[in-house]
Amino acid sequence: MTSTSQQPEQKPTAERVMEAFRGYQRTAAMKAAIELDLFTIIGEGKSTVPDIAAAARASERGIRILCDHLAVQGFLNKAGAAYTLAPDAQLFLDRKSPSCINDAAFGFFASAEVMHSFGSLAAAVRKGGTAAAGQGMMDPNDPLWVDFAVSMVNVQRPMAHGLAKVLNAEAGSPWKVLDVASGHGLFGVTLAAKNPNAEVYSQDWESVLAVAQKNADAAGVAARFHKIPGDAFQVDLGSDYDLVLLTNFLQLLDVAAIEVFLKKIFRVLKPGGRVITLGFIPNEDRISPLGPAVFSLMMLATTPGGDAYTFSDYDRMFRAAGFARSEPVALPNAPQQLIISTK
Amino acid sequence: MTSTSQQPEQKPTAERVMEAFRGYQRTAAMKAAIELDLFTIIGEGKSTVPDIAAAARASERGIRILCDHLAVQGFLNKAGAAYTLAPDAQLFLDRKSPSCINDAAFGFFASAEVMHSFGSLAAAVRKGGTAAAGQGMMDPNDPLWVDFAVSMVNVQRPMAHGLAKVLNAEAGSPWKVLDVASGHGLFGVTLAAKNPNAEVYSQDWESVLAVAQKNADAAGVAARFHKIPGDAFQVDLGSDYDLVLLTNFLQLLDVAAIEVFLKKIFRVLKPGGRVITLGFIPNEDRISPLGPAVFSLMMLATTPGGDAYTFSDYDRMFRAAGFARSEPVALPNAPQQLIISTK
Repeated sequence: MTSTSQQPEQKPTAERVMEAFRGYQRTAAMKAAIELDLFTIIGEGKSTVPDIAAAARASERGIRILCDHLAVQGFLNKAGAAYTLAPDAQLFLDRKSPSCINDAAFGFFASAEVMHSFGSLAAAVRKGGTAAAGQGMMDPNDPLWVDFAVSMVNVQRPMAHGLAKVLNAEAGSPWKVLDVASGHGLFGVTLAAKNPNAEVYSQDWESVLAVAQKNADAAGVAARFHKIPGDAFQVDLGSDYDLVLLTNFLQLLDVAAIEVFLKKIFRVLKPGGRVITLGFIPNEDRISPLGPAVFSLMMLATTPGGDAYTFSDYDRMFRAAGFARSEPVALPNAPQQLIISTK
Repeated sequence: MTSTSQQPEQKPTAERVMEAFRGYQRTAAMKAAIELDLFTIIGEGKSTVPDIAAAARASERGIRILCDHLAVQGFLNKAGAAYTLAPDAQLFLDRKSPSCINDAAFGFFASAEVMHSFGSLAAAVRKGGTAAAGQGMMDPNDPLWVDFAVSMVNVQRPMAHGLAKVLNAEAGSPWKVLDVASGHGLFGVTLAAKNPNAEVYSQDWESVLAVAQKNADAAGVAARFHKIPGDAFQVDLGSDYDLVLLTNFLQLLDVAAIEVFLKKIFRVLKPGGRVITLGFIPNEDRISPLGPAVFSLMMLATTPGGDAYTFSDYDRMFRAAGFARSEPVALPNAPQQLIISTK
């Protein structure tokens, strides 16, 4: 290959390609660091390789190499021989931080089940949906959803608080709320905690609702927290709701299933009632911003027909189900966004 | 968590942490695209989802999601509904490019064996070396090295040409060259191709030398290409060499083994003879630049004692083995660097 560039030092190298080939090493480094509780140990003030290795019960050689790797990735600072936590590691990776999301690596983002599905990604591209056994993570009662409910609380909490603010929950309007596929139950529970006049009906598999119940108990809203165990498509969801929460749910489904489901939801809402869709909603170009844009690949690898739908996709599907209008609402500092659709 | 930042829009989010958790998805996307020959298809001018899907014999939904992901990663450009190759994809991922390195993903960087070793990274950190069975990739005659030899030719070719230039091979000095653990044999073969007065002795496992022999034949230097099959530590390496090439080799070993091996090499060199060490050699801070700095993690995961040694590490080890001096020599536009050590 000859280069006609006038800046020979800047001709393309294979470095970016090799970095993409090595992507799995970033995952492995984060999982190993979390397993060894490295971020908590460094957060406690251990800063040198011998001190960190002693606290982690690991070899000095292994700790030195892992810490250097995490410094390259920007999660640790290195000054001379001393390591400290970078700001986002301090907030999100030190177990003593109330916003720590360590468990979400093992529980969802890089769980054995999800990573296994990505092992057959080429087959999923050929087929147009998960090449994992059965329906992938959409198998009824997949135990992955219990892990998800347990591990994703701190990832979702800022969004749950953002939602309560957007809906002005603290104004105390009497609300009957349906929380579909509620998982950890955090969205409904947070609305109930902020609004003493909200009654929340939380639907999910029985095993998952046990996790949501604990979160409702912890938030002191158990008396206004009601469970609807079963399959969202099959179970009687009740009626006369002011609000229906569809958080991280529609994106798991294909367009046909979403349209069927939205008609069911339309029927359980009061006139003027609202549906809150929360999920990864990329711009219309489907390649920005980063977090929502890359979510579609996870849906391809792990579900038969899920996707990262755009606002115009959702708008069309809600209209087809009879809703009057939908509007996008930004959640600040969150990878996920809201759509509010009115009956 | 409360933030005291004056720019609330810029408070830390978990996005960078989640991106690291998802690192394996970048690997999976690249491997799927290579398996489906997506970059070659787009390089041929297919630009829309239906056309690309037809050529790749894959679903339109899968192709759309994969192409969007590759656009997010910057390997494709997307304009409206049309995808084209970004410059580095054109050079390094289109099979029709003479510098295509696709095979290196499956043959080495993200091979099943290497990825498997990263699956027990926490155990490797505890232990201080590979937690894979046996000696990891240092098992005698590991078939990985045949895959490496076959698949890494285009990754290494620019470095082999850079080396020939640095050594001024074209001047035609009579050289007796030993190429240790030669793999594809490209470094020795390139010196022989550029210098008609060079005789090259290539040492590696018998199965690997078969690959090097093919490269020597193809380069028209078979008459000056000699094979030394066996274990580098055990086999008689010959004597009176002008040059010994240690490319991508010392970094696989621990310090004690390197010092033993360098003494053996010292003995087979002529007085004034030179050793060329080529490998991933980070700066003394061990966390820059990116490619060399992250290489140590691969050595931790896959070998009992390998590392990304710095220049001062190598300088000390060469002195301990009796060498007069070592000097670092930069290879332009290459992730790997050179050290020339003189007897």
